[in-house]
Amino acid sequence: MNHISIDCVIFGFNNNELKVLLLHLKYSKEYSLPGGFLKYDETLEQAAQRIVRERTGLDKLFLKQFKVFSDPERSKSNKAILDADMAGSKPDKTFFDKRFISVGFYSLVDFRKVKPTPDLFSDRCDWVSLNEDVSMLLDHKQIIQEAISTLRLQLNQQPIGLKLLPRKFTMPELQTLYETILGRDLDRRNFQRKMLNYNILDKLKERKTGGAHKSPYLYSFNMERYQKALEDGLSGIW
Amino acid sequence: MNHISIDCVIFGFNNNELKVLLLHLKYSKEYSLPGGFLKYDETLEQAAQRIVRERTGLDKLFLKQFKVFSDPERSKSNKAILDADMAGSKPDKTFFDKRFISVGFYSLVDFRKVKPTPDLFSDRCDWVSLNEDVSMLLDHKQIIQEAISTLRLQLNQQPIGLKLLPRKFTMPELQTLYETILGRDLDRRNFQRKMLNYNILDKLKERKTGGAHKSPYLYSFNMERYQKALEDGLSGIW
Repeated sequence: MNHISIDCVIFGFNNNELKVLLLHLKYSKEYSLPGGFLKYDETLEQAAQRIVRERTGLDKLFLKQFKVFSDPERSKSNKAILDADMAGSKPDKTFFDKRFISVGFYSLVDFRKVKPTPDLFSDRCDWVSLNEDVSMLLDHKQIIQEAISTLRLQLNQQPIGLKLLPRKFTMPELQTLYETILGRDLDRRNFQRKMLNYNILDKLKERKTGGAHKSPYLYSFNMERYQKALEDGLSGIW
Repeated sequence: MNHISIDCVIFGFNNNELKVLLLHLKYSKEYSLPGGFLKYDETLEQAAQRIVRERTGLDKLFLKQFKVFSDPERSKSNKAILDADMAGSKPDKTFFDKRFISVGFYSLVDFRKVKPTPDLFSDRCDWVSLNEDVSMLLDHKQIIQEAISTLRLQLNQQPIGLKLLPRKFTMPELQTLYETILGRDLDRRNFQRKMLNYNILDKLKERKTGGAHKSPYLYSFNMERYQKALEDGLSGIW
Protein backbone atom coordinates (compact mmCIF):
# COMPACT_ATOMS: atom_id res chain seq x y z
CA MET A 1 0.00 0.00 0.00
CA ASN A 2 2.53 2.58 -1.18
CA HIS A 3 -0.04 5.34 -1.01
CA ILE A 4 -0.39 4.97 2.74
CA SER A 5 2.38 5.54 5.27
CA ILE A 6 2.49 5.79 9.03
CA ASP A 7 4.54 8.17 11.17
CA CYS A 8 4.90 7.74 14.92
CA VAL A 9 5.49 10.54 17.42
CA ILE A 10 6.90 8.90 20.56
CA PHE A 11 6.97 11.20 23.58
CA GLY A 12 9.10 10.76 26.67
CA PHE A 13 9.51 13.00 29.73
CA ASN A 14 12.93 13.53 31.26
CA ASN A 15 14.58 16.31 33.28
CA ASN A 16 11.35 18.31 33.10
CA GLU A 17 11.46 18.29 29.34
CA LEU A 18 9.16 16.71 26.79
CA LYS A 19 11.22 14.81 24.21
CA VAL A 20 10.50 12.99 20.96
CA LEU A 21 12.25 9.87 19.69
CA LEU A 22 13.74 10.61 16.26
CA LEU A 23 15.91 8.84 13.72
CA HIS A 24 18.92 10.72 12.37
CA LEU A 25 19.22 10.00 8.64
CA LYS A 26 22.63 8.88 7.38
CA TYR A 27 22.86 10.87 4.19
CA SER A 28 20.68 13.91 4.57
CA LYS A 29 21.68 14.57 8.21
CA GLU A 30 18.04 15.39 8.89
CA TYR A 31 15.85 13.92 11.58
CA SER A 32 12.85 11.77 10.71
CA LEU A 33 9.96 10.30 12.67
CA PRO A 34 9.96 6.50 12.86
CA GLY A 35 7.70 5.60 9.95
CA GLY A 36 6.96 3.21 7.11
CA PHE A 37 4.33 1.95 4.69
CA LEU A 38 1.17 -0.03 5.39
CA LYS A 39 1.34 -3.65 4.25
CA TYR A 40 -1.55 -5.20 2.40
CA ASP A 41 -2.70 -7.50 5.21
CA GLU A 42 -2.26 -5.17 8.19
CA THR A 43 -4.49 -2.71 10.00
CA LEU A 44 -2.93 0.71 10.54
CA GLU A 45 -2.59 -0.12 14.22
CA GLN A 46 -0.65 -3.32 13.47
CA ALA A 47 1.57 -1.47 11.02
CA ALA A 48 2.34 1.24 13.59
CA GLN A 49 3.34 -1.42 16.14
CA ARG A 50 5.56 -3.17 13.60
CA ILE A 51 7.25 0.05 12.49
CA VAL A 52 7.98 1.20 16.02
CA ARG A 53 9.36 -2.24 16.87
CA GLU A 54 11.57 -2.42 13.78
CA ARG A 55 12.86 1.11 13.97
CA THR A 56 13.30 1.66 17.68
CA GLY A 57 13.22 -1.73 19.36
CA LEU A 58 10.10 -0.79 21.34
CA ASP A 59 7.34 -3.38 21.61
CA LYS A 60 3.63 -3.25 22.46
CA LEU A 61 3.33 0.50 22.83
CA PHE A 62 -0.03 2.18 23.33
CA LEU A 63 -0.17 4.03 20.01
CA LYS A 64 -3.03 6.34 19.15
CA GLN A 65 -4.09 7.68 15.74
CA PHE A 66 -4.44 11.44 15.76
CA LYS A 67 -4.53 12.78 12.19
CA VAL A 68 -3.94 11.98 8.53
CA PHE A 69 -1.60 14.26 6.62
CA SER A 70 -2.67 14.45 2.99
CA ASP A 71 -1.25 17.51 1.26
CA PRO A 72 -0.64 16.26 -2.32
CA GLU A 73 2.74 18.05 -2.32
CA ARG A 74 3.99 16.65 0.98
CA SER A 75 6.02 13.76 -0.43
CA LYS A 76 7.62 15.86 -3.16
CA SER A 77 9.28 18.48 -1.00
CA ASN A 78 12.37 16.52 -0.06
CA LYS A 79 12.56 14.08 -2.92
CA ALA A 80 16.25 14.65 -3.65
CA ILE A 81 17.15 13.93 -0.06
CA LEU A 82 14.93 10.88 0.09
CA ASP A 83 16.49 9.53 -3.09
CA ALA A 84 19.94 9.91 -1.56
CA ASP A 85 18.90 8.08 1.58
CA MET A 86 17.20 5.26 -0.28
CA ALA A 87 19.87 4.94 -3.00
CA GLY A 88 20.91 1.38 -3.63
CA SER A 89 18.63 0.02 -0.95
CA LYS A 90 15.90 -2.14 -2.48
CA PRO A 91 13.38 -0.91 -5.03
CA ASP A 92 11.77 1.17 -2.24
CA LYS A 93 13.14 4.25 -3.93
CA THR A 94 10.17 4.48 -6.25
CA PHE A 95 7.81 4.80 -3.28
CA PHE A 96 8.73 8.42 -3.10
CA ASP A 97 7.95 9.14 -6.72
CA LYS A 98 4.31 8.71 -5.91
CA ARG A 99 2.03 10.65 -3.69
CA PHE A 100 1.39 9.14 -0.28
CA ILE A 101 -0.68 10.18 2.70
CA SER A 102 0.59 9.57 6.22
CA VAL A 103 -1.41 8.54 9.25
CA GLY A 104 0.04 10.07 12.43
CA PHE A 105 0.18 8.00 15.63
CA TYR A 106 1.48 9.11 18.99
CA SER A 107 2.59 7.37 22.13
CA LEU A 108 3.78 8.23 25.62
CA VAL A 109 6.60 6.02 26.87
CA ASP A 110 8.70 5.42 29.93
CA PHE A 111 11.90 7.26 29.07
CA ARG A 112 14.07 4.99 31.19
CA LYS A 113 12.91 1.75 29.59
CA VAL A 114 13.69 2.73 26.01
CA LYS A 115 16.75 1.46 24.16
CA PRO A 116 16.75 3.58 21.00
CA THR A 117 17.91 1.56 17.98
CA PRO A 118 18.63 3.12 14.57
CA ASP A 119 17.49 1.41 11.37
CA LEU A 120 19.10 0.86 7.97
CA PHE A 121 18.76 4.47 6.86
CA SER A 122 19.76 6.15 10.09
CA ASP A 123 22.99 6.38 12.07
CA ARG A 124 21.40 7.37 15.36
CA CYS A 125 18.11 7.14 17.24
CA ASP A 126 17.93 10.11 19.62
CA TRP A 127 15.63 11.65 22.19
CA VAL A 128 15.31 15.22 20.99
CA SER A 129 13.89 17.97 23.19
CA LEU A 130 10.94 19.87 21.76
CA ASN A 131 12.82 23.06 22.57
CA GLU A 132 15.57 22.13 20.11
CA ASP A 133 15.07 23.39 16.59
CA VAL A 134 16.38 20.53 14.44
CA SER A 135 16.07 20.08 10.69
CA MET A 136 13.42 17.52 9.76
CA LEU A 137 12.27 15.41 6.82
CA LEU A 138 9.16 16.29 4.78
CA ASP A 139 6.33 17.64 6.97
CA HIS A 140 7.50 15.81 10.09
CA LYS A 141 7.84 19.02 12.08
CA GLN A 142 4.17 19.76 11.42
CA ILE A 143 3.23 16.21 12.40
CA ILE A 144 4.96 16.68 15.77
CA GLN A 145 3.19 20.02 16.32
CA GLU A 146 -0.18 18.40 15.68
CA ALA A 147 0.68 15.57 18.06
CA ILE A 148 1.43 18.09 20.82
CA SER A 149 -1.86 19.91 20.19
CA THR A 150 -3.65 16.59 20.48
CA LEU A 151 -1.82 15.77 23.70
CA ARG A 152 -2.83 19.16 25.18
CA LEU A 153 -6.49 18.60 24.38
CA GLN A 154 -6.23 15.09 25.73
CA LEU A 155 -5.29 16.48 29.15
CA ASN A 156 -8.86 17.76 29.40
CA GLN A 157 -10.50 14.43 28.90
CA GLN A 158 -8.19 11.60 29.83
CA PRO A 159 -5.63 10.81 32.51
CA ILE A 160 -2.00 11.09 31.53
CA GLY A 161 1.29 10.36 33.21
CA LEU A 162 1.27 6.61 33.76
CA LYS A 163 4.24 5.92 31.48
CA LEU A 164 5.83 9.33 31.87
CA LEU A 165 6.36 9.44 35.64
CA PRO A 166 8.03 7.03 38.05
CA ARG A 167 5.61 4.70 39.86
CA LYS A 168 5.65 6.92 42.95
CA PHE A 169 5.61 10.65 42.43
CA THR A 170 4.83 13.88 44.25
CA MET A 171 2.06 16.31 43.34
CA PRO A 172 4.64 18.92 42.19
CA GLU A 173 6.18 16.32 39.86
CA LEU A 174 2.78 15.58 38.35
CA GLN A 175 2.09 19.29 38.00
CA THR A 176 5.44 19.83 36.23
CA LEU A 177 4.46 17.19 33.68
CA TYR A 178 1.18 18.97 32.96
CA GLU A 179 2.89 22.35 32.79
CA THR A 180 5.48 20.98 30.37
CA ILE A 181 2.84 19.60 28.03
CA LEU A 182 0.68 22.72 28.24
CA GLY A 183 3.67 25.05 27.96
CA ARG A 184 2.45 27.30 30.81
CA ASP A 185 2.32 27.53 34.61
CA LEU A 186 -0.67 26.26 36.56
CA ASP A 187 -2.01 27.32 39.93
CA ARG A 188 -0.77 24.85 42.55
CA ARG A 189 -3.91 24.60 44.70
CA ASN A 190 -6.29 24.51 41.78
CA PHE A 191 -4.23 21.77 40.13
CA GLN A 192 -4.15 19.63 43.27
CA ARG A 193 -7.89 20.01 43.82
CA LYS A 194 -8.71 18.97 40.25
CA MET A 195 -6.33 16.03 40.23
CA LEU A 196 -7.73 14.67 43.49
CA ASN A 197 -11.26 15.20 42.18
CA TYR A 198 -10.53 12.93 39.23
CA ASN A 199 -10.16 10.14 41.75
CA ILE A 200 -7.37 8.31 39.94
CA LEU A 201 -4.60 8.79 42.53
CA ASP A 202 -3.68 6.76 45.58
CA LYS A 203 -2.04 8.78 48.33
CA LEU A 204 0.77 6.64 49.78
CA LYS A 205 1.75 6.42 53.42
CA GLU A 206 5.40 7.09 52.75
CA ARG A 207 6.73 10.53 51.92
CA LYS A 208 9.51 11.60 49.67
CA THR A 209 12.78 11.89 51.59
CA GLY A 210 16.04 13.70 50.95
CA GLY A 211 14.71 17.18 50.20
CA ALA A 212 15.61 20.22 52.25
CA HIS A 213 11.95 21.17 52.73
CA LYS A 214 9.17 19.39 54.51
CA SER A 215 8.89 15.99 52.81
CA PRO A 216 6.04 15.99 50.27
CA TYR A 217 3.49 13.19 50.02
CA LEU A 218 3.95 10.48 47.44
CA TYR A 219 1.18 9.33 45.11
CA SER A 220 0.71 6.55 42.62
CA PHE A 221 -1.97 6.00 40.01
CA ASN A 222 -4.82 3.71 40.97
CA MET A 223 -4.62 1.35 38.03
CA GLU A 224 -8.25 0.28 38.03
CA ARG A 225 -9.65 3.81 38.15
CA TYR A 226 -6.97 5.12 35.78
CA GLN A 227 -7.97 2.50 33.22
CA LYS A 228 -11.64 3.29 33.62
CA ALA A 229 -10.96 7.01 33.14
CA LEU A 230 -8.95 6.24 30.00
CA GLU A 231 -11.98 4.54 28.53
CA ASP A 232 -14.81 6.71 29.83
CA GLY A 233 -13.10 10.09 30.10
CA LEU A 234 -12.31 11.89 33.35
CA SER A 235 -15.11 12.13 35.85
CA GLY A 236 -16.13 15.39 37.39
CA ILE A 237 -16.14 17.37 34.16
CA TRP A 238 -19.89 17.20 33.66
CA MET B 1 -6.31 6.87 -5.05
CA ASN B 2 -8.52 3.78 -4.93
CA HIS B 3 -6.92 2.63 -1.71
CA ILE B 4 -8.23 5.63 0.18
CA SER B 5 -11.87 6.52 0.71
CA ILE B 6 -13.68 9.04 2.85
CA ASP B 7 -16.89 8.60 4.81
CA CYS B 8 -18.77 11.51 6.34
CA VAL B 9 -20.96 11.36 9.44
CA ILE B 10 -23.24 14.42 9.30
CA PHE B 11 -25.10 15.06 12.55
CA GLY B 12 -28.22 17.13 12.95
CA PHE B 13 -30.39 17.80 16.03
CA ASN B 14 -34.15 17.84 15.72
CA ASN B 15 -37.04 17.14 18.07
CA ASN B 16 -34.57 16.38 20.86
CA GLU B 17 -33.01 13.63 18.80
CA LEU B 18 -29.55 13.31 17.30
CA LYS B 19 -29.84 12.26 13.65
CA VAL B 20 -27.41 11.26 10.91
CA LEU B 21 -27.74 12.02 7.20
CA LEU B 22 -27.69 8.73 5.27
CA LEU B 23 -28.10 7.60 1.68
CA HIS B 24 -30.51 4.75 1.00
CA LEU B 25 -28.97 2.47 -1.65
CA LYS B 26 -31.16 1.57 -4.61
CA TYR B 27 -30.34 -2.08 -4.96
CA SER B 28 -29.25 -3.37 -1.61
CA LYS B 29 -31.85 -1.38 0.36
CA GLU B 30 -29.17 -0.65 2.93
CA TYR B 31 -28.16 2.74 4.24
CA SER B 32 -24.71 4.14 3.53
CA LEU B 33 -22.74 7.16 4.78
CA PRO B 34 -22.05 9.79 2.13
CA GLY B 35 -18.59 8.76 0.90
CA GLY B 36 -16.20 8.44 -2.00
CA PHE B 37 -12.58 8.07 -3.04
CA LEU B 38 -9.72 10.53 -2.71
CA LYS B 39 -8.60 12.06 -6.02
CA TYR B 40 -4.93 12.35 -6.84
CA ASP B 41 -4.69 16.13 -6.49
CA GLU B 42 -6.88 16.64 -3.42
CA THR B 43 -6.24 16.81 0.30
CA LEU B 44 -8.55 14.62 2.37
CA GLU B 45 -10.30 17.76 3.59
CA GLN B 46 -11.00 18.92 0.03
CA ALA B 47 -12.25 15.46 -0.93
CA ALA B 48 -14.60 15.39 2.06
CA GLN B 49 -16.06 18.77 1.07
CA ARG B 50 -16.53 17.63 -2.53
CA ILE B 51 -18.16 14.36 -1.52
CA VAL B 52 -20.61 16.00 0.86
CA ARG B 53 -21.49 18.60 -1.77
CA GLU B 54 -22.02 16.01 -4.51
CA ARG B 55 -23.96 13.57 -2.42
CA THR B 56 -26.09 15.81 -0.23
CA GLY B 57 -26.05 19.28 -1.78
CA LEU B 58 -24.38 20.76 1.32
CA ASP B 59 -21.52 23.19 0.81
CA LYS B 60 -18.68 24.49 2.99
CA LEU B 61 -19.37 22.35 6.02
CA PHE B 62 -17.02 22.29 8.99
CA LEU B 63 -15.82 18.69 8.62
CA LYS B 64 -13.41 17.15 11.08
CA GLN B 65 -11.26 14.03 10.69
CA PHE B 66 -11.75 11.64 13.56
CA LYS B 67 -10.40 8.18 12.69
CA VAL B 68 -9.12 5.96 9.89
CA PHE B 69 -10.80 2.58 9.49
CA SER B 70 -8.31 0.05 8.16
CA ASP B 71 -9.41 -3.50 8.84
CA PRO B 72 -8.11 -5.40 5.77
CA GLU B 73 -11.43 -7.29 5.57
CA ARG B 74 -13.68 -4.24 5.77
CA SER B 75 -14.21 -3.80 2.04
CA LYS B 76 -14.84 -7.47 1.42
CA SER B 77 -17.78 -7.95 3.72
CA ASN B 78 -20.48 -6.63 1.46
CA LYS B 79 -18.87 -7.14 -1.92
CA ALA B 80 -21.89 -8.82 -3.50
CA ILE B 81 -24.11 -5.92 -2.53
CA LEU B 82 -21.60 -3.35 -3.69
CA ASP B 83 -21.31 -5.10 -7.04
CA ALA B 84 -25.07 -4.99 -7.44
CA ASP B 85 -25.17 -1.29 -6.64
CA MET B 86 -22.30 -0.43 -8.92
CA ALA B 87 -23.36 -2.72 -11.77
CA GLY B 88 -23.28 -1.03 -15.15
CA SER B 89 -22.18 2.27 -13.71
CA LYS B 90 -18.66 3.15 -14.93
CA PRO B 91 -15.58 1.01 -14.31
CA ASP B 92 -15.81 2.01 -10.62
CA LYS B 93 -16.89 -1.52 -9.87
CA THR B 94 -13.31 -2.74 -9.64
CA PHE B 95 -12.65 -0.32 -6.80
CA PHE B 96 -14.29 -2.75 -4.48
CA ASP B 97 -12.17 -5.69 -5.54
CA LYS B 98 -9.24 -4.06 -3.81
CA ARG B 99 -8.67 -3.24 -0.21
CA PHE B 100 -9.30 0.36 0.80
CA ILE B 101 -9.02 2.25 4.04
CA SER B 102 -11.55 4.92 4.93
CA VAL B 103 -10.94 8.22 6.68
CA GLY B 104 -13.91 9.20 8.84
CA PHE B 105 -15.02 12.83 8.97
CA TYR B 106 -17.86 14.26 11.00
CA SER B 107 -19.86 17.44 10.93
CA LEU B 108 -22.61 19.16 12.89
CA VAL B 109 -25.15 20.94 10.72
CA ASP B 110 -28.21 23.11 10.98
CA PHE B 111 -31.00 20.61 10.47
CA ARG B 112 -33.36 23.19 8.98
CA LYS B 113 -30.96 24.36 6.28
CA VAL B 114 -30.28 20.96 4.75
CA LYS B 115 -31.89 19.82 1.50
CA PRO B 116 -30.94 16.14 1.37
CA THR B 117 -30.20 15.04 -2.20
CA PRO B 118 -29.67 11.40 -3.20
CA ASP B 119 -26.89 10.46 -5.63
CA LEU B 120 -26.69 8.03 -8.55
CA PHE B 121 -26.64 4.93 -6.38
CA SER B 122 -29.30 5.93 -3.90
CA ASP B 123 -33.02 6.54 -4.08
CA ARG B 124 -33.29 8.60 -0.89
CA CYS B 125 -31.20 10.80 1.37
CA ASP B 126 -32.72 10.62 4.86
CA TRP B 127 -32.16 11.95 8.34
CA VAL B 128 -32.07 8.80 10.44
CA SER B 129 -32.37 8.88 14.23
CA LEU B 130 -29.54 7.21 16.12
CA ASN B 131 -32.18 5.31 18.04
CA GLU B 132 -33.33 3.58 14.86
CA ASP B 133 -31.61 0.29 14.10
CA VAL B 134 -31.22 0.34 10.32
CA SER B 135 -29.20 -2.02 8.13
CA MET B 136 -25.95 -0.44 6.95
CA LEU B 137 -23.22 -0.94 4.36
CA LEU B 138 -19.79 -2.33 5.26
CA ASP B 139 -18.56 -1.05 8.64
CA HIS B 140 -20.57 2.16 8.46
CA LYS B 141 -22.40 1.41 11.68
CA GLN B 142 -19.08 1.21 13.49
CA ILE B 143 -17.94 4.47 11.86
CA ILE B 144 -21.04 6.23 13.23
CA GLN B 145 -20.42 4.79 16.71
CA GLU B 146 -16.85 6.10 16.69
CA ALA B 147 -18.08 9.51 15.52
CA ILE B 148 -20.46 9.69 18.48
CA SER B 149 -17.69 8.73 20.91
CA THR B 150 -15.54 11.50 19.45
CA LEU B 151 -18.40 13.98 19.78
CA ARG B 152 -18.86 13.04 23.44
CA LEU B 153 -15.20 13.59 24.23
CA GLN B 154 -15.28 16.84 22.28
CA LEU B 155 -17.91 18.19 24.70
CA ASN B 156 -15.15 18.28 27.32
CA GLN B 157 -12.80 20.44 25.35
CA GLN B 158 -14.66 22.50 22.78
CA PRO B 159 -17.91 24.43 22.50
CA ILE B 160 -20.72 22.77 20.61
CA GLY B 161 -24.18 23.77 19.53
CA LEU B 162 -23.65 26.65 17.11
CA LYS B 163 -25.11 24.84 14.11
CA LEU B 164 -27.35 22.56 16.10
CA LEU B 165 -29.49 25.08 17.94
CA PRO B 166 -31.53 28.06 16.76
CA ARG B 167 -29.73 31.40 17.07
CA LYS B 168 -31.57 32.18 20.30
CA PHE B 169 -32.07 29.37 22.77
CA THR B 170 -32.83 28.72 26.42
CA MET B 171 -30.51 27.07 28.91
CA PRO B 172 -32.79 23.97 29.08
CA GLU B 173 -32.59 23.67 25.28
CA LEU B 174 -28.81 23.77 25.42
CA GLN B 175 -28.80 21.21 28.23
CA THR B 176 -31.06 18.88 26.23
CA LEU B 177 -28.56 18.98 23.37
CA TYR B 178 -25.73 17.97 25.71
CA GLU B 179 -27.84 15.27 27.33
CA THR B 180 -28.78 13.87 23.92
CA ILE B 181 -25.16 13.65 22.82
CA LEU B 182 -24.00 12.19 26.14
CA GLY B 183 -26.95 9.85 26.40
CA ARG B 184 -27.60 10.67 30.06
CA ASP B 185 -29.17 13.30 32.32
CA LEU B 186 -27.16 16.18 33.73
CA ASP B 187 -27.67 18.21 36.88
CA ARG B 188 -29.40 21.46 35.94
CA ARG B 189 -27.57 23.85 38.28
CA ASN B 190 -24.18 22.29 37.67
CA PHE B 191 -24.70 22.47 33.92
CA GLN B 192 -25.70 26.12 33.99
CA ARG B 193 -22.73 27.06 36.20
CA LYS B 194 -20.25 25.32 33.89
CA MET B 195 -21.71 26.74 30.71
CA LEU B 196 -21.66 30.28 32.08
CA ASN B 197 -18.08 29.74 33.27
CA TYR B 198 -16.98 28.95 29.75
CA ASN B 199 -17.85 32.52 28.90
CA ILE B 200 -19.12 31.82 25.40
CA LEU B 201 -22.78 32.78 25.92
CA ASP B 202 -24.49 36.15 25.68
CA LYS B 203 -27.57 36.47 27.89
CA LEU B 204 -30.22 38.33 25.91
CA LYS B 205 -32.64 40.91 27.26
CA GLU B 206 -35.67 39.21 25.79
CA ARG B 207 -37.19 36.06 27.28
CA LYS B 208 -38.85 33.13 25.64
CA THR B 209 -42.59 33.65 25.46
CA GLY B 210 -45.51 31.34 25.00
CA GLY B 211 -44.77 28.76 27.68
CA ALA B 212 -47.05 28.06 30.59
CA HIS B 213 -44.26 28.55 33.14
CA LYS B 214 -42.25 31.61 34.01
CA SER B 215 -40.54 32.68 30.78
CA PRO B 216 -36.95 31.43 30.63
CA TYR B 217 -34.05 33.66 29.59
CA LEU B 218 -32.77 33.45 26.03
CA TYR B 219 -29.09 33.11 25.19
CA SER B 220 -27.02 33.22 22.04
CA PHE B 221 -23.41 32.25 21.41
CA ASN B 222 -20.86 35.04 21.49
CA MET B 223 -19.26 34.41 18.13
CA GLU B 224 -15.86 35.87 18.93
CA ARG B 225 -15.41 33.93 22.15
CA TYR B 226 -17.00 30.80 20.70
CA GLN B 227 -14.47 30.86 17.86
CA LYS B 228 -11.59 31.39 20.26
CA ALA B 229 -12.74 28.47 22.41
CA LEU B 230 -12.97 26.28 19.30
CA GLU B 231 -9.32 26.97 18.60
CA ASP B 232 -7.85 27.08 22.11
CA GLY B 233 -10.17 24.69 23.95
CA LEU B 234 -12.63 25.72 26.63
CA SER B 235 -11.34 27.96 29.37
CA GLY B 236 -11.83 27.16 33.00
CA ILE B 237 -10.80 23.53 32.79
CA TRP B 238 -7.26 24.07 34.05
